[in-house]
Amino acid sequence: MYSIILLLVILCNRASAQKASIFPKGEKSTNVHNTGTVWLHELNVPDSVFNYSIAQAVFEPGAKLDWHIHPAGQILLISQGAGYYQERGKPKQTVHKGDIIKCLPGVEHWHGAAPKSSFAYIATTPAHKGKTI
Amino acid sequence: MYSIILLLVILCNRASAQKASIFPKGEKSTNVHNTGTVWLHELNVPDSVFNYSIAQAVFEPGAKLDWHIHPAGQILLISQGAGYYQERGKPKQTVHKGDIIKCLPGVEHWHGAAPKSSFAYIATTPAHKGKTI
Repeated sequence: MYSIILLLVILCNRASAQKASIFPKGEKSTNVHNTGTVWLHELNVPDSVFNYSIAQAVFEPGAKLDWHIHPAGQILLISQGAGYYQERGKPKQTVHKGDIIKCLPGVEHWHGAAPKSSFAYIATTPAHKGKTI
Repeated sequence: MYSIILLLVILCNRASAQKASIFPKGEKSTNVHNTGTVWLHELNVPDSVFNYSIAQAVFEPGAKLDWHIHPAGQILLISQGAGYYQERGKPKQTVHKGDIIKCLPGVEHWHGAAPKSSFAYIATTPAHKGKTI
């Protein structure tokens, strides 16, 4: 009987490992405008062939980015957990794994993890109009 | 004792649900050049703001795409399982969850699932040079 329980615990742990982010968490963000710990992993640096950045961001529960603007917009593919997304002048939305958010060019917004949930996304950001403000 | 086992089984099943693809699997591909079942879910249709497609592809074990070419290249973010990637004239590579593959413009290649593994990726494909050949 105990061996069955042991086996189940091992299987559980293996399955739980799937909860980890898809890519390594990368570096802790040093942006002083963030709240809490956010890890960033750049998956594509824009160049002349692929002129958009791809990055994974992983948030500890409650961590969030401050208000910001992408001059050419950004698409967020929510890959883990639950969090918030809000555009200036609009109500805060709750977003979950599997949601897709399009931030249009120049629209001020913030996003971050829900207070008790992990949160991660993959962001694609066109590079032709410069960096995040 | 049995209630402990039941609890563990429930927890296992919940954790295993994390193995599912990030986004809904979408439609079964009707491309007659594929082998086995491949599901495609288009996450972004290219437009004037975001001029690249984003799509999730999920493969049943052993399923694969035939040789093809992206006129403007493609970046594959392997999000689940294990599979193969091969460019014309080069050896077949094994790729895993967390790997990133850049197919350069015009390079003929194929990719697919390993025989006994699930396999999924998110592909970003610049749209300015037309569709896959």
